[in-house]
Amino acid sequence: MTQITESIASAIGADRLVTDAAALAAHRTDYWILAHLRRRQGRLADPPLAVVQPRSSAEVAAIVKLARARRTPIVPYGGGSGVVGGATPEAGALVIDLRRMDRLLEVNDTALTASAEAGLLGGEFERRLNARGYVSGHYPQSLELASLGGLVATRSAGQFSTLYGNVEDLCLGLEAVLPNGEIARIVPTPRSATGPSLREIFLGSEGTLGIVTEVTLRIFPKPERRAMSSWSFDGMEPALDAIRRIVRVGWRPAVVRLYDGFEASQWHFKQWVPVNKCALLLLSEGPAGLVEAEERACAEIATAAGGSALGVAPVEHWLERRNHVPSWDQFLDQEMMVDTIEVSAAWDRVATLYDRVIAALRDRPGMLVASAHSSHSYRQGTNLYVTFAVKPENFAEAEAAYVGAWAAVMEATLAAGGSISHHHGIGRMRVPWIERELGTAYPVLRALKRALDPDGLMNPGVLLPA
Amino acid sequence: MTQITESIASAIGADRLVTDAAALAAHRTDYWILAHLRRRQGRLADPPLAVVQPRSSAEVAAIVKLARARRTPIVPYGGGSGVVGGATPEAGALVIDLRRMDRLLEVNDTALTASAEAGLLGGEFERRLNARGYVSGHYPQSLELASLGGLVATRSAGQFSTLYGNVEDLCLGLEAVLPNGEIARIVPTPRSATGPSLREIFLGSEGTLGIVTEVTLRIFPKPERRAMSSWSFDGMEPALDAIRRIVRVGWRPAVVRLYDGFEASQWHFKQWVPVNKCALLLLSEGPAGLVEAEERACAEIATAAGGSALGVAPVEHWLERRNHVPSWDQFLDQEMMVDTIEVSAAWDRVATLYDRVIAALRDRPGMLVASAHSSHSYRQGTNLYVTFAVKPENFAEAEAAYVGAWAAVMEATLAAGGSISHHHGIGRMRVPWIERELGTAYPVLRALKRALDPDGLMNPGVLLPA
Repeated sequence: MTQITESIASAIGADRLVTDAAALAAHRTDYWILAHLRRRQGRLADPPLAVVQPRSSAEVAAIVKLARARRTPIVPYGGGSGVVGGATPEAGALVIDLRRMDRLLEVNDTALTASAEAGLLGGEFERRLNARGYVSGHYPQSLELASLGGLVATRSAGQFSTLYGNVEDLCLGLEAVLPNGEIARIVPTPRSATGPSLREIFLGSEGTLGIVTEVTLRIFPKPERRAMSSWSFDGMEPALDAIRRIVRVGWRPAVVRLYDGFEASQWHFKQWVPVNKCALLLLSEGPAGLVEAEERACAEIATAAGGSALGVAPVEHWLERRNHVPSWDQFLDQEMMVDTIEVSAAWDRVATLYDRVIAALRDRPGMLVASAHSSHSYRQGTNLYVTFAVKPENFAEAEAAYVGAWAAVMEATLAAGGSISHHHGIGRMRVPWIERELGTAYPVLRALKRALDPDGLMNPGVLLPA
Repeated sequence: MTQITESIASAIGADRLVTDAAALAAHRTDYWILAHLRRRQGRLADPPLAVVQPRSSAEVAAIVKLARARRTPIVPYGGGSGVVGGATPEAGALVIDLRRMDRLLEVNDTALTASAEAGLLGGEFERRLNARGYVSGHYPQSLELASLGGLVATRSAGQFSTLYGNVEDLCLGLEAVLPNGEIARIVPTPRSATGPSLREIFLGSEGTLGIVTEVTLRIFPKPERRAMSSWSFDGMEPALDAIRRIVRVGWRPAVVRLYDGFEASQWHFKQWVPVNKCALLLLSEGPAGLVEAEERACAEIATAAGGSALGVAPVEHWLERRNHVPSWDQFLDQEMMVDTIEVSAAWDRVATLYDRVIAALRDRPGMLVASAHSSHSYRQGTNLYVTFAVKPENFAEAEAAYVGAWAAVMEATLAAGGSISHHHGIGRMRVPWIERELGTAYPVLRALKRALDPDGLMNPGVLLPA
């Protein structure tokens, strides 16, 4: 054992330490395809120094203090479902795996909140709530893989976000271990004006400003009624306009998903959607009277915008398959690099953003697929969830092909006035663009980092350049 | 002129400087009754060094740099409508008055946003939007007095907040001059996962972390339909329970106001409300179908909780009088100290909070009035807007009577697990309680302050101890 693992063992117990090769190998990256490629090519960083599995915030605090004293970099690790390398430690880093901290601590029926340790997985949290008559309202595709702490730390978005909000709307309080090893508890309140909202510092911090160890989230009574519909459109522009008109006046269908011609008619919904038509899926839930009124209003707006009704079957089809997560190996075996990139823009820019991003990808050599859907809409704009598949002539150059595709999307997004990440975060993959994304506000993020983590030991190289 | 005013005059023009006695006197405090009392008693701090009225963010930046070089404290000043002393400069401070920066910069019809300089008043902003078919959705009682920058910097809440949200939900982007004199522009996006939300640092910063010079806010199409109703209840508990049941399942009436027995039956609505009964006011607005469904559902829930319908007249009465702001002089002339204190709590604590706060005030000697209403409700809880009037036996001891009343409410709130400010902010009045409010998260706020304002020149003594 190294000095640091010895001191951790003596401080909190040797049983909290994992140093076997398999466990170390399992924590060399998360769900980032580029790291999986590098591993195949023998270019991934060596395994971390050790994996620690604390059982309490106090244990996390003790570990952070010991690591800090020895200037050892720390990488917090939740479910490992991140797709941009946010949990991809450099060799010699200490991984703090939060998965053993998975207790549901409290469900408050009157205040409609639930508190849990950070390592509880989203799917398990949802089932525990369902058994008591509640829902979490937060359903990322990674629901069964992602930890609650990870969802908070990466600023996650769920598939039902138009109604329930994203994780920053759901997370009312949290506990975090600061880079100096002190525990900060941000107490949930319905609403306060007691200075800046400190929880926002940790929402999206990706382990660089502290380690989220506990969260308090809003919960919701199971909705009384659900209504579903789907619509085909001739193109993205009229369909985007239909969404804009629905949310503009105050309707909030939980699910609002618009697939472009390729994704709708040649991929996900080909049994229902005519060739090259787009497909809009809507799902409303809540009190019966609200859902009925919303369903009627959405149908009127979609029809007026040129939509043709496709019925409920496409929505049911999506509901059944929505959380399928592909294995990167199946693509790497075929010498393809496949990924998704989510960006966002205001309504007056999103059609241009779509055109530019797709065009930029199609210009890339070896590009097999370049398509997108919108999956999270707001009164001010929406996101685009871009999928690409590239098969380079020479697979030894797969990294360049992959990074080139990413760069094309990032540059097209910045040029169109969009934002470079809607909900996957910055991780390692987007670091080259974070300064341009934030512009003159970038020094504020740098100042925050320096203030809380002056030695730069927390997840170095993620969110900000190391 | 002093050295600093000379250098400001030479940098941005002598016409930007106001040094006459009347203007300096007008900027010695905001709408804080304690400062008005101290002025009468000759105990208020001497006037500020000078008042500067910049016309652009660049001018604000130049002023901040000059002041910083000479280590001169800076107090940003908007509409002067704060009620807890947030704009109450110490002698020798430089006041930066934003009121000459009052341009409406852009209304984006497609993205539903409006950008304006920080000095534009809320009422003027609303009228400019109304003329284009929009509403701001943000109606604090101080609407006609408060600047948009001030509303953002103090984390303001509006009377229609249950539908439209509070200022943190409305403000999507802003420009601020940092304490080092650099301009940081936080570009609005519908939603991003690009690190922590940096605008949240300035929402509630009360001028201590930077000076907000421009804001971008959500706007809303004028609602199609409005519905109003009011209800009497035997006590606060059943009425609070009715509100909780309304918002719990997803209804969001724009206005939800519950007045206790004193305020309802002996003050605001005595022509309609039987003695000692409470009164609940509801106002829904939005698409016709939604409003109709919401009105029906609210009536059912209110009736089931024991409410008796009072009709629309009390709501109309409130709408007409809602923005009346009393003059402190009328009370000081009568040797009374009068104030409001807004606190918040989760639903499982708010009835206890009400009882304890009112009891704590009634215990104070010379207390004439101690009452409260709830004016901002959420799925998780609500606020209490407490009013007190105290007439000390000897008016020379008015400050002690006033501070004692405040302390009683602050201590009762902390003891009941509430939050010490719902929407007026910390200012100078609440500074003694900020550390206990934030608990172990307090060092995070301190670190933020040290990081951005290491010399402590920005509004010293506000939000945090000087």
